Amino acid sequence: MSGKLSIVGLGPGDDRYLTREALDALGEATALYGYGAYLDRIRSRAGQSRYASDNREEAERARAALSHAASGVNVAIVSGGDPGVFAMAASVCEEIAAGLDSWRALDVTIVPGITAMLAAAARAGAPLGHDFCALSLSDNLKPWELIERRLDAASGAGFVIALYNPVSRARPWQLGKAFARLARHLPGTTPVIFGRAVGRGDEAVTVTTLAGASDTPADMATLIIVGSRETRIIDREGRTPLVYTPRAVEEAIA
Amino acid sequence: MSGKLSIVGLGPGDDRYLTREALDALGEATALYGYGAYLDRIRSRAGQSRYASDNREEAERARAALSHAASGVNVAIVSGGDPGVFAMAASVCEEIAAGLDSWRALDVTIVPGITAMLAAAARAGAPLGHDFCALSLSDNLKPWELIERRLDAASGAGFVIALYNPVSRARPWQLGKAFARLARHLPGTTPVIFGRAVGRGDEAVTVTTLAGASDTPADMATLIIVGSRETRIIDREGRTPLVYTPRAVEEAIA
Repeated sequence: MSGKLSIVGLGPGDDRYLTREALDALGEATALYGYGAYLDRIRSRAGQSRYASDNREEAERARAALSHAASGVNVAIVSGGDPGVFAMAASVCEEIAAGLDSWRALDVTIVPGITAMLAAAARAGAPLGHDFCALSLSDNLKPWELIERRLDAASGAGFVIALYNPVSRARPWQLGKAFARLARHLPGTTPVIFGRAVGRGDEAVTVTTLAGASDTPADMATLIIVGSRETRIIDREGRTPLVYTPRAVEEAIA
Repeated sequence: MSGKLSIVGLGPGDDRYLTREALDALGEATALYGYGAYLDRIRSRAGQSRYASDNREEAERARAALSHAASGVNVAIVSGGDPGVFAMAASVCEEIAAGLDSWRALDVTIVPGITAMLAAAARAGAPLGHDFCALSLSDNLKPWELIERRLDAASGAGFVIALYNPVSRARPWQLGKAFARLARHLPGTTPVIFGRAVGRGDEAVTVTTLAGASDTPADMATLIIVGSRETRIIDREGRTPLVYTPRAVEEAIA
């Protein structure tokens, strides 16, 4: 009896971002685990059981899915976006590292998905066309001082920065402080993109500047991209502007 | 007469990574542009013309596709991986910025895809589970000194680093020099993943360490992920190891 655990990325938004590999993995699983809102995005099939849990119960969900798979079942955990980017794949690895030998013996497959920064970037143009980084602003999982140090390092060295988890009810001040920190290194005219709920019916993409960013609303469903000194905006009459970072840098930035 | 230009990400490897949105965009286009090897991955349909070009002719391809779309045609440019990551989307934006007014008026849609670092990370575990950056090692488009400065900044601040374009026939020494540079900031035991041709029949994923990285073969089809001080390896009997970066950092890294 050998079980299997797949950790499947659904991409952001509706099912337009689902890959064939993800569809196959979901179809083969006989038990699905995940945050309820993600499970709701998947079509049911007969003989498949579902185990919904709260968005914050990642460790418990990972352990339940691992135990279920170790009993010989084909189990899939669904994840919004890409499971490897600030999501379930690391959580499952953490539990395997700390858990039972039978979990270590499992066939574990991670199915990548479109992560939020790629979807938001696509809506705006090509802001990630040059070197970039992805940084979670949640200081639940690391000290705020480290986040500031990373903001300094990334903006100072010319990386475009994608900010995940920019704000939540329990973390209302971090985003404003991050913009203020970035303003030490970047001009106020630096393009900033707010991609909210990209791929959903209530999608809203806003292009602003670092100087205007603090006045732009953001919530847990928002992915923010802060440009580098090289990032540019193409204004277009009657169309949304295109934001892009050129592929080439002519000289090292001071 | 209004044309349309879609820039469509195919993901790496075969069609397992194609999204529904990408399939729809390819199906609706009447003219397809792209590197020949990417066009070969797409099923033909009647009435659809194809314009293959060499991998390095990105600017020419972008201009030809823009002109064709501006003549009132639904044109798609295909891109391996994600078009927004070191690929065609920035190239098209550069040409729009420098080009004709009619190009600026076009309906331009970018369809995101699974970029190589997500696919390679998924094969290895969850190395991108914490803050990370993506850096192209090609010094065709920026000075080598800037690449070294970014390697310093990213590794020093604790980002996991995905290296795109690690090596080519014209750039044989850059990768070794990059590993040597990273070794100033990271221990020799730091996990390093070489993901070659992920999603293709000749896929090869190797897990090594920073100390062993210089002796591991790489080519243009390789995506390399260099861990941070936090990245760990779970050894598994009879299975490939799992490499992951825990979501939490307990204290700021010196």
